[in-house]
Amino acid sequence: MSMIDLNCDMGESFGAYKMGTDEEILNYITSANIACGFHAGDPTTMRKTVTMALERNVGIGVHPGLPDLVGFGRRTMDISPQEAYDLIVYQIGAVYAFTKAEGGKLQHVKPHGALYNMAAKSPSLSEAIAEAIYKVDPELILFGLAGGELVKAGKKIGLRSASEVFSDRTYQEDGSLTSRREENALIHDQEVAVNQVIRIVKEGKVKSLQGVDVSIQAHTVCIHGDGQNALQFAKYISTSLQNAGITIAKISNFLGV
Amino acid sequence: MSMIDLNCDMGESFGAYKMGTDEEILNYITSANIACGFHAGDPTTMRKTVTMALERNVGIGVHPGLPDLVGFGRRTMDISPQEAYDLIVYQIGAVYAFTKAEGGKLQHVKPHGALYNMAAKSPSLSEAIAEAIYKVDPELILFGLAGGELVKAGKKIGLRSASEVFSDRTYQEDGSLTSRREENALIHDQEVAVNQVIRIVKEGKVKSLQGVDVSIQAHTVCIHGDGQNALQFAKYISTSLQNAGITIAKISNFLGV
Amino acid sequence: MSMIDLNCDMGESFGAYKMGTDEEILNYITSANIACGFHAGDPTTMRKTVTMALERNVGIGVHPGLPDLVGFGRRTMDISPQEAYDLIVYQIGAVYAFTKAEGGKLQHVKPHGALYNMAAKSPSLSEAIAEAIYKVDPELILFGLAGGELVKAGKKIGLRSASEVFSDRTYQEDGSLTSRREENALIHDQEVAVNQVIRIVKEGKVKSLQGVDVSIQAHTVCIHGDGQNALQFAKYISTSLQNAGITIAKISNFLGV
Amino acid sequence: MSMIDLNCDMGESFGAYKMGTDEEILNYITSANIACGFHAGDPTTMRKTVTMALERNVGIGVHPGLPDLVGFGRRTMDISPQEAYDLIVYQIGAVYAFTKAEGGKLQHVKPHGALYNMAAKSPSLSEAIAEAIYKVDPELILFGLAGGELVKAGKKIGLRSASEVFSDRTYQEDGSLTSRREENALIHDQEVAVNQVIRIVKEGKVKSLQGVDVSIQAHTVCIHGDGQNALQFAKYISTSLQNAGITIAKISNFLGV
Repeated sequence: MSMIDLNCDMGESFGAYKMGTDEEILNYITSANIACGFHAGDPTTMRKTVTMALERNVGIGVHPGLPDLVGFGRRTMDISPQEAYDLIVYQIGAVYAFTKAEGGKLQHVKPHGALYNMAAKSPSLSEAIAEAIYKVDPELILFGLAGGELVKAGKKIGLRSASEVFSDRTYQEDGSLTSRREENALIHDQEVAVNQVIRIVKEGKVKSLQGVDVSIQAHTVCIHGDGQNALQFAKYISTSLQNAGITIAKISNFLGV
Repeated sequence: MSMIDLNCDMGESFGAYKMGTDEEILNYITSANIACGFHAGDPTTMRKTVTMALERNVGIGVHPGLPDLVGFGRRTMDISPQEAYDLIVYQIGAVYAFTKAEGGKLQHVKPHGALYNMAAKSPSLSEAIAEAIYKVDPELILFGLAGGELVKAGKKIGLRSASEVFSDRTYQEDGSLTSRREENALIHDQEVAVNQVIRIVKEGKVKSLQGVDVSIQAHTVCIHGDGQNALQFAKYISTSLQNAGITIAKISNFLGV
Repeated sequence: MSMIDLNCDMGESFGAYKMGTDEEILNYITSANIACGFHAGDPTTMRKTVTMALERNVGIGVHPGLPDLVGFGRRTMDISPQEAYDLIVYQIGAVYAFTKAEGGKLQHVKPHGALYNMAAKSPSLSEAIAEAIYKVDPELILFGLAGGELVKAGKKIGLRSASEVFSDRTYQEDGSLTSRREENALIHDQEVAVNQVIRIVKEGKVKSLQGVDVSIQAHTVCIHGDGQNALQFAKYISTSLQNAGITIAKISNFLGV
Repeated sequence: MSMIDLNCDMGESFGAYKMGTDEEILNYITSANIACGFHAGDPTTMRKTVTMALERNVGIGVHPGLPDLVGFGRRTMDISPQEAYDLIVYQIGAVYAFTKAEGGKLQHVKPHGALYNMAAKSPSLSEAIAEAIYKVDPELILFGLAGGELVKAGKKIGLRSASEVFSDRTYQEDGSLTSRREENALIHDQEVAVNQVIRIVKEGKVKSLQGVDVSIQAHTVCIHGDGQNALQFAKYISTSLQNAGITIAKISNFLGV
């Protein structure tokens, strides 16, 4: 039976600033990536988000980012592997404490934004991130780009590592995502986006922009939580995957070692 | 037998900015209060400080502060009890993760600066702080001003709560510290300072500025880690207390419930 | 002829976070209070806001706040008059530079949030703020609560000082605003709100919650820029004031020394 | 007659954190680069630094940095030219206001750390920085790496642009600085360092690590203000340059258009 986890970035509000439709999106996803105050989020938002996710039995994830609030963690920064290790440990701890206070348990860690992209290409950064997670709690699941360095580093150190795919991004013939600086990086047609995910899950293949099929593994799909159609698309992909015979389940319920 | 814990603020360096003589002071104290990045400290400093403290078997403490880096957490801020709860949970988590990653265990929580002083006088703030600690880990020890609201709130919720005294501060006849805005708030003579602590520990009494003896309980004494004479005073008080027959021990080794 | 300035807080977006409907509101106001990055705003937002305001010939104002981004500058902080002076000078400079770069000129300074409220009651804080403004540019106009200490300090040092009133807040018999912690602090009925302003402008009187008339001066009225009805209310008050024979004009065009 | 300006980074203290020996170093330099709160510095430190520099008739410079306090602005960040423009305008304004309040005048702008290095290699970043400076005040002098893109962009837009050299860094045969990641990047022998500067000033040549002479222009030399020997070296280089017949003068007193 085909299974997939649906994850979404959450808890990105900050002080008086609201972002996303977390409460509604939580009804359609199985794993929540919770911002930790570095690229977004604040302690009060974290507590509320953790509480909401636990109430819906959604997997609690840490979403550590670069210390760049004004840039939303999206600007590449030249941090060392040791700095990455320290940032990750710190941010895991912050989400851990809110989760523990509410009687819950952490499920996963998914680096955010530029940190995610930098890790996908850098073995040394990925090893530092994987080590940080492993040393805090070896039971945590690591989310990384399918085919990227982070997933490799996670497996190497002994973490359960989930390969993540994107519904709304196109792929290159080497299995990498098309850069957002290229035309055709994004898939705007929702049906095309969902069909790409269904094929990845069922056949382990995606058609690259170059027209050739590429092998790709998917344990979890990233859903976007902000933007006008976020909620509508969350419903649509959830329903479509299930209609295609795919079971949507929390990653911790099906990912083996 | 008389016992006392010696605690000191640690890990207050920040990025390129160095503060304190942590490595040396750690040889004379039994409990370290580690800054968490809100009023001082950063993830890299936290890791190093936790590691150094664990190597010397010093008790690891969380030293949560107000989000005021430029003011070093010393400026009173009108935060709500809920905001205090959230800040405390977050900061406990951050120190927890570094401690866990190094194979250690958290011992205590001592609010920093203005937050400490605000809590000493506010039952609602103190209850929020005590609840935050209790919900993350009921085994944690809470440090508060001897006779203040924080210690009361800690006991009420069921936390082991340590009464803290200061060697270099004078006391009022109601048992409170003389405000730093008053003359005579500070004790500059080291011998007077140490003798005040010895009498508090052995007799449970301190002579107030008004000349009358006041009853006071002491489980832990605060040592300052910066300033020119910090290290020298740490040695001096440590030796003097032991010469007076007082055993210096980690708070977790002798504080009952 | 009765004249009044309409001011609104602007430029409160921050990085990826959007707040307010600045572009539309600018069509109904005469003075813009531009956030400076301490309680809200960032350099990019400041540039855009200054540019938009200059295009519409709206007076450019500095809206300096406390360094409390997560609290939106609304939490009282115990800063010294010297710290207030320094914060104000810094933030004036930031808005000045964007305005100068676009060929414009600063018109006024209005402290934000808790700083505004603290200043209204504190002569020493108000004198520090007024001095900061005066030393950077004695031509700048100072906005303060009608009847408060800030307006007094401004006049004393020689700044043109504008008394500000609120349409949606009730007043006490001593001329102060009813605290937001009290019931009846806010006026929800738009017609009542606008009629309060019209009477203040035309008669120099407001009916206090205690039922007695209080003398009050008004040079400028604060309009709120966020919230669902902000834009609609801005139109409504603008039209209503004009229908009542009141001229809406930029404060620099009519405020004498 | 050979002339040179001596510049030093200043005002890098932050809140309770002290850095540098500004007061003493100011006696040996002619231009001060004042941190603006992004990579170091805070409003109170800025005011004190501006005041001290004006008292000694040292040229007041803006030292804008990346928004990375914990990394001291030394970590490369992928900011856009527009973001660089906005950061520069903002930070110029902040120093301007303190200078204006004290009755002084800004002299120059020198980007800090990673921003300086990024600009040296990037025409688009350099053009954005030069434009920011020019639009705020075309009289300001721009400091950039001798031979780098920033100096070129400054000249192109019409700013007086000063070529900066380093006494304690070695050069490559293409005129660039040896990367700090290479061995031999730093010159530790003070006599060698000073002789390198003397030859650059008098002959317009520096011997590269590859052994060949490279043409290089110098209007200003960077002195480091922290570290154990900073003050001693400042005295030494000042005396040595003068003994070699070089006049040390404020850049604004001799740099032509």
